[in-house]
Amino acid sequence: MDFLSNFLIRFLTQLQSPTLGFLIGGMIVASLGSRLSIPDPVYKFIVFMLLIKVGLTGGQAIRDSNPAEILLPALFAVVIGILIVFIGRYTLCMLPNVKIEDGIATAGLFGAVSGSTLAAALTLLETQGIPYEPWAAALYPFMDIPALVTAIVLSSIYTSKRRGTADEYLSKQEYSSKQGITARGYPNKKHERVKIWPIVKESLQGSALSALLLGLALGLLTQPESVYKSFYDPLFRGLLSVLMLIMGMEAAARLKELRQVAQWYAVYAFVAPLLHGFIAFGFGMIAHYTTGFTLGGVVILAVIAASSSDISGPPTLRAGIPSANPSAYIGASTAVGTPVALALGIPLYIGLAQALMGG
Amino acid sequence: MDFLSNFLIRFLTQLQSPTLGFLIGGMIVASLGSRLSIPDPVYKFIVFMLLIKVGLTGGQAIRDSNPAEILLPALFAVVIGILIVFIGRYTLCMLPNVKIEDGIATAGLFGAVSGSTLAAALTLLETQGIPYEPWAAALYPFMDIPALVTAIVLSSIYTSKRRGTADEYLSKQEYSSKQGITARGYPNKKHERVKIWPIVKESLQGSALSALLLGLALGLLTQPESVYKSFYDPLFRGLLSVLMLIMGMEAAARLKELRQVAQWYAVYAFVAPLLHGFIAFGFGMIAHYTTGFTLGGVVILAVIAASSSDISGPPTLRAGIPSANPSAYIGASTAVGTPVALALGIPLYIGLAQALMGG
Amino acid sequence: MDFLSNFLIRFLTQLQSPTLGFLIGGMIVASLGSRLSIPDPVYKFIVFMLLIKVGLTGGQAIRDSNPAEILLPALFAVVIGILIVFIGRYTLCMLPNVKIEDGIATAGLFGAVSGSTLAAALTLLETQGIPYEPWAAALYPFMDIPALVTAIVLSSIYTSKRRGTADEYLSKQEYSSKQGITARGYPNKKHERVKIWPIVKESLQGSALSALLLGLALGLLTQPESVYKSFYDPLFRGLLSVLMLIMGMEAAARLKELRQVAQWYAVYAFVAPLLHGFIAFGFGMIAHYTTGFTLGGVVILAVIAASSSDISGPPTLRAGIPSANPSAYIGASTAVGTPVALALGIPLYIGLAQALMGG
Repeated sequence: MDFLSNFLIRFLTQLQSPTLGFLIGGMIVASLGSRLSIPDPVYKFIVFMLLIKVGLTGGQAIRDSNPAEILLPALFAVVIGILIVFIGRYTLCMLPNVKIEDGIATAGLFGAVSGSTLAAALTLLETQGIPYEPWAAALYPFMDIPALVTAIVLSSIYTSKRRGTADEYLSKQEYSSKQGITARGYPNKKHERVKIWPIVKESLQGSALSALLLGLALGLLTQPESVYKSFYDPLFRGLLSVLMLIMGMEAAARLKELRQVAQWYAVYAFVAPLLHGFIAFGFGMIAHYTTGFTLGGVVILAVIAASSSDISGPPTLRAGIPSANPSAYIGASTAVGTPVALALGIPLYIGLAQALMGG
Repeated sequence: MDFLSNFLIRFLTQLQSPTLGFLIGGMIVASLGSRLSIPDPVYKFIVFMLLIKVGLTGGQAIRDSNPAEILLPALFAVVIGILIVFIGRYTLCMLPNVKIEDGIATAGLFGAVSGSTLAAALTLLETQGIPYEPWAAALYPFMDIPALVTAIVLSSIYTSKRRGTADEYLSKQEYSSKQGITARGYPNKKHERVKIWPIVKESLQGSALSALLLGLALGLLTQPESVYKSFYDPLFRGLLSVLMLIMGMEAAARLKELRQVAQWYAVYAFVAPLLHGFIAFGFGMIAHYTTGFTLGGVVILAVIAASSSDISGPPTLRAGIPSANPSAYIGASTAVGTPVALALGIPLYIGLAQALMGG
Repeated sequence: MDFLSNFLIRFLTQLQSPTLGFLIGGMIVASLGSRLSIPDPVYKFIVFMLLIKVGLTGGQAIRDSNPAEILLPALFAVVIGILIVFIGRYTLCMLPNVKIEDGIATAGLFGAVSGSTLAAALTLLETQGIPYEPWAAALYPFMDIPALVTAIVLSSIYTSKRRGTADEYLSKQEYSSKQGITARGYPNKKHERVKIWPIVKESLQGSALSALLLGLALGLLTQPESVYKSFYDPLFRGLLSVLMLIMGMEAAARLKELRQVAQWYAVYAFVAPLLHGFIAFGFGMIAHYTTGFTLGGVVILAVIAASSSDISGPPTLRAGIPSANPSAYIGASTAVGTPVALALGIPLYIGLAQALMGG
């Protein structure tokens, strides 16, 4: 019981951290009907600033690191990304009132990664003084892209099997064009093999992954130390607190949307982040004992798995699974999945790592 | 005469402070027809940053303070907020060419509080090394809300007494819907008692008060020190200078609007801030001698009274007094009231406090 | 050959500087089709922040400097601004498939100055430890305005000589009104002398020059040290890196536009910045030997000449030469001229100055 009471004390302390405090503050403020809002261009710029900073840190770290070290964690990230989507395919999709395509898209989004959640975890690890490999943030695309690819492939296989009629095909096209999205050679046509590369490319071209990879490249190839120390690093925590506020407000606003789809989405969105995190924590421990992956790195792997994409994932899924209902997957991720990952998942995995470090 | 010459020297020095320098610079630049502008989303974010910082400071201060201390100044703030509206009701509204509803709304706006003016005063107090209670900024809502409530109640009483005809009622409704504002159970229907709570709620839900109260709550209940010291506090003065520039440009732009309404608005907007500030300074001195309220705190109370709302007030008034002409009250506040409070009021009250401290 | 190899080493080092690294990163990211973008309001605010900082630095410097010092460099700046437009008039405009008005407008834009390029040069000079007169940035308007005025006057003379028919005149008016631009007393009417003052005023009222001059005035007349040190100065390099990223992405995007006009624009846009910079470097060396103008100042003069306007110039040219095709001049400047000035020009002139300092 000592572990539990220690954990609860740590948990309550972490809720007072600015990161989680602003998240919860945002949820309360929005649910009280406040007209407070952070303008969208500022929100987008904050996300850019955080991801390019995470990338710069990683890029500079990779310069001095052994590339072999990253292999096993990266492989595990790929495996977890694919696994999460299969879990969703054979749990969420089997539940009553859940449309198969909606379920697969939701699972894809929960397999994909949230840069904001990752940034929050990095900050909390630093506050708690838990060391981690600075390149650990670079695991992001290794889980994100396989999850999205798997979701789109599974959805395409399902659609092919169902032997859609011409009418259905047409209505789907219509839906897609109403959303102003072109499918760009995506797996809409029957009896055609799903092309992987366009999905990967679409993911990489998304604003979140682009910013992260640009940061990685600049950190690796240029000398960004002067701007990193004077600008990107000092602003990181403050901008993160603003982002948490926005995410809290967004979560409260999306809750209404979520109420309009099957309640099973809310159940999945609550359970899945924690479960995915524990699975990844287990994989991470294997790397910990075999290759010396730090416990901080294990936490990051768990958080990446627990997080669900809020920026880069949705557009890729809209284009890749045009028949899925965005309200279902975006609502589940933003209103429940992300707050659960942030306010329960991160403190949980950090607490677990601290308990293991103490032992 | 020593006081006056000292005061003039101080006054000229304060005009060179970045805060007032940027305000005057903005007025000059805009009146020369420059196309320089700070984008609106940036403006909104700056206001958020300033108010949440003021709130965080206050919240952290309240943690360590005696809650009894705040009682008398808070009570005085309420009294002054109500008094200002009554003064406007029996001066401005009596003048020729001033529509009663417009006059009441203007008085309400001048009773309400401007977060930007408050932020400017806090900065100047710090520059001058004058100590003040850090929770003094928390007096904001104690004056803001009573002033807006009083204005809406007085306007409603006036409307009821006038025994409006059905036609008038309809035209009013029309005006309100043209503005895209729903009256939300506001006192439009005749012979019905004015409901106070919706007005209070509307005020509290405004973006300015929400940000301030959120900051207060986060400062009180969480541990925001790390982001406060690395982000909100260091950016405060710089962002304030940008905000002052915007307010100066806005004042010059609104001057044209003000010219289209009765000139008495300009006279009121010039005299009222200074008068309200002196009244509040007097009340503050009572608290100074009875409960040891600092002279810096007295200045803050005076500035809160001198300031007129630029962000949170107008939407509440539009909904609460839909028959009043926004050009009249917003023009009077933005074009004349706020610059007078900033460039004359603040230096005046600080000079007065310094003279009293020297004595 | 020693100079060349030293120069190449320096050149490669400078490409790794954050300034140029972000520029090239932006070009690569955008040409790979990324959806990464920095919202426009943030872009505008960054430009404002950089120019007001450059102005504040200059203004504070002028306070302590000898006004006579600035005379010769300022005179040279005027001469170079006019000369650049004449060079363009008698080279670019003579080439096949180049419309005379388009060529003159392009030359005007290349004579005008880019605040971002100037900011990048100042940062690199500081990184390399090369001293320069802090007021050197104030040379900006002395080249910018004469170049734009000369271009509009030359275009007007050309139009008058061509003896346009009434039909032509009408079609021109139509084009102008389609662009939502009123000519504001500009030289559209035949047989009328070109009025210089409206062009100068239009330039001065542009957002870029307004911000720079406002900063100069505030630096000269107020005491902005506190906000300068805590806000404008520390954020300068970081914001510049973001701006370089935007400019890189913008350059890649504009390249497509440029392909639709005569290829001679691309040739001109590549050669002109380097040539203009060398001419200005020569003039600067005269000032160096006669009045002791620093080599850092010579570099700044060269960079101002090499740069082409990206913010303030285009609207003035649209109003002043409504018959010119904006795709031609904006494309040439943004897609080729600015990257060449930044990535080749600045390292070249700094290398040259360093070689001369070593000699």
